[in-house]
Amino acid sequence: MVMVKMVEDGAAPPEVQTVFDEIKELRKSNWINNFWKVLASSPATMLRIWSNVKQVMAPGAIDPLTKEMIYVAVSVTNNCEYCIHSHTAAARAKGMTDEMYGELLAVVGLANETNRLANGYQIPVDEQFKPRFD
Amino acid sequence: MVMVKMVEDGAAPPEVQTVFDEIKELRKSNWINNFWKVLASSPATMLRIWSNVKQVMAPGAIDPLTKEMIYVAVSVTNNCEYCIHSHTAAARAKGMTDEMYGELLAVVGLANETNRLANGYQIPVDEQFKPRFD
Amino acid sequence: MVMVKMVEDGAAPPEVQTVFDEIKELRKSNWINNFWKVLASSPATMLRIWSNVKQVMAPGAIDPLTKEMIYVAVSVTNNCEYCIHSHTAAARAKGMTDEMYGELLAVVGLANETNRLANGYQIPVDEQFKPRFD
Amino acid sequence: MVMVKMVEDGAAPPEVQTVFDEIKELRKSNWINNFWKVLASSPATMLRIWSNVKQVMAPGAIDPLTKEMIYVAVSVTNNCEYCIHSHTAAARAKGMTDEMYGELLAVVGLANETNRLANGYQIPVDEQFKPRFD
Amino acid sequence: MVMVKMVEDGAAPPEVQTVFDEIKELRKSNWINNFWKVLASSPATMLRIWSNVKQVMAPGAIDPLTKEMIYVAVSVTNNCEYCIHSHTAAARAKGMTDEMYGELLAVVGLANETNRLANGYQIPVDEQFKPRFD
Amino acid sequence: MVMVKMVEDGAAPPEVQTVFDEIKELRKSNWINNFWKVLASSPATMLRIWSNVKQVMAPGAIDPLTKEMIYVAVSVTNNCEYCIHSHTAAARAKGMTDEMYGELLAVVGLANETNRLANGYQIPVDEQFKPRFD
Repeated sequence: MVMVKMVEDGAAPPEVQTVFDEIKELRKSNWINNFWKVLASSPATMLRIWSNVKQVMAPGAIDPLTKEMIYVAVSVTNNCEYCIHSHTAAARAKGMTDEMYGELLAVVGLANETNRLANGYQIPVDEQFKPRFD
Repeated sequence: MVMVKMVEDGAAPPEVQTVFDEIKELRKSNWINNFWKVLASSPATMLRIWSNVKQVMAPGAIDPLTKEMIYVAVSVTNNCEYCIHSHTAAARAKGMTDEMYGELLAVVGLANETNRLANGYQIPVDEQFKPRFD
Repeated sequence: MVMVKMVEDGAAPPEVQTVFDEIKELRKSNWINNFWKVLASSPATMLRIWSNVKQVMAPGAIDPLTKEMIYVAVSVTNNCEYCIHSHTAAARAKGMTDEMYGELLAVVGLANETNRLANGYQIPVDEQFKPRFD
Repeated sequence: MVMVKMVEDGAAPPEVQTVFDEIKELRKSNWINNFWKVLASSPATMLRIWSNVKQVMAPGAIDPLTKEMIYVAVSVTNNCEYCIHSHTAAARAKGMTDEMYGELLAVVGLANETNRLANGYQIPVDEQFKPRFD
Repeated sequence: MVMVKMVEDGAAPPEVQTVFDEIKELRKSNWINNFWKVLASSPATMLRIWSNVKQVMAPGAIDPLTKEMIYVAVSVTNNCEYCIHSHTAAARAKGMTDEMYGELLAVVGLANETNRLANGYQIPVDEQFKPRFD
Repeated sequence: MVMVKMVEDGAAPPEVQTVFDEIKELRKSNWINNFWKVLASSPATMLRIWSNVKQVMAPGAIDPLTKEMIYVAVSVTNNCEYCIHSHTAAARAKGMTDEMYGELLAVVGLANETNRLANGYQIPVDEQFKPRFD
């Protein structure tokens, strides 16, 4: 029950179509997923988010597959259905196996558990963990 | 303002002391961090969580550093101060650099943003993203 | 898959029917939305929440449209599907345009991102931001 | 770093002082905790929340201690420091022991873990769990 | 749109089938719910979580019904659809009535509201609430 | 206990100093708040977020004060202490009064409550609320 009318590839205003074309080129695919067709209803948001995604998800000190798995970890913690599906697909395309997905979810689950134990007991941060800048 | 009295290393009941000793042995260190000294107030929980952590964080299809960074991603999303400090320290001990931490937070931030765009627009999951099991 | 049996308009106990009638009168409509039909299964809760909503959402120092947009911002952050739909409809009825909805989601998304950057870096609150009461 | 000036017991406007007096009477105590002194800065909110708390936390089908433990479970999940401290104190006053608190946190932690496993695997709700209203 | 292939009762590897059999024996039922059939895709996770659930949810200082209601409170706060359905069913099987469910949700709702008031006003924890360990 | 070394105004690399100067110019102030001094440790992130903030928070279909109040609503819901303080200060600078802040928190609190009632009862979205695109 999407809240806005999706903009279809080929029927988009020029600035949006340029992003659609770039997405297809980058992915070597002719398909645009709903996220971009929905964001295209607010071109300024679409261009801004696309530019953010390209910068943040580019290879850097952390490799692209690890970045996608971190994205999935956040999406699972927030229970964002669309994001779980789209970023799991992206992670699989970059090499995540079933076994890796199982381990990823195990870490995400455990972290959510111990986060609440730390909160519930109001555990003070150890001096040894506090960063020093001298 | 911790909610229970911490159990100190050397003054613990035998089953708890065994875990304390195992932690120190594993980490080649003489120091026990507050998380375990607090959990030791409920020995059954402490033994259970320790056993979970050992199983989940062990090297597997995903390497230990990546697992720690996933742990940090969840802890930042949930805003668990203790967990952010302790698991960032653990990730640094396993090789996470300042530059990697910056990129990790950039991904976590962006994922939290696009999670809300996906929710707010109620974007339907593309058929192409739906897993098939034939 | 609602968890309780909804109470229909016209088939409600008197105290509940009085609220149903007040809702229809206030909205100049003959239709009761599911939220109230479900809450009606617990009359004490229904009367309490209705009384809260009337007080909190009434015009005051903040206008009703802005209040509805704040309601949507919370619902999107929490990913409450029902609330996103019902309060977006209410905001539209009070004058929110497509363009305003796009900007609202842009702010909600960005706030969720920078919230995590602030948490992840554990940024200390500036002295200048701390309220003074002399 | 409270955001508003607290209203002190004895220096409050009449409608607020009436609630202060009722709180002290009910608790057989001369002390007002910060929550009510802060809310007193917005008398309408203070009166509304006090009326809600009295209704919701009153003995009913669920006993007051269980209600307080549910309150703590929510506060730990949300990581609300003030609420963890105040409602844990309330639960202790109603009979919660150290052992019960340890078990409460164990359930809260585990629930937060399995919530993410259910989300991450996108587990479909079994037909047998779906309520029937015929 | 489950993310992995479910493992069916009777077609499971031995270590998984042992848990399936134990579940059915314990519940005096021939039915395995989807949670366990999905987790069975990662046997190590399934065995670990099953062992955790048995330990944490066992009768102790807190009775099993109260534990289930705490589980529901967390699941509602996190908006985990599967968990809301499965743990509400479990709580009903242990004696939760419609009236109790109504009161449980009223407490969960109110706690989520006052959690945000406490956060939004940045209410300082009263000295009287701070635990003392002498 | 900030996680990185802050970059001070006047001691920053050129691309960062340019943003510092722009912030001071825009705010008619000589002071840089910690958020930007911390982000400056990752120049690419700082430049990206600054560019996002300028675009999203600019006057548009929604006025800047309303945007700041929406920002606060999200930050309170997520319990981000730094963000609550910094964006409340920004909202005050743009005209938010004490009374408006009280009403803002009342809406945020109520929305968090009814979000959980909607989730807990699993209320189905009314057909009338579903957007139509013909």
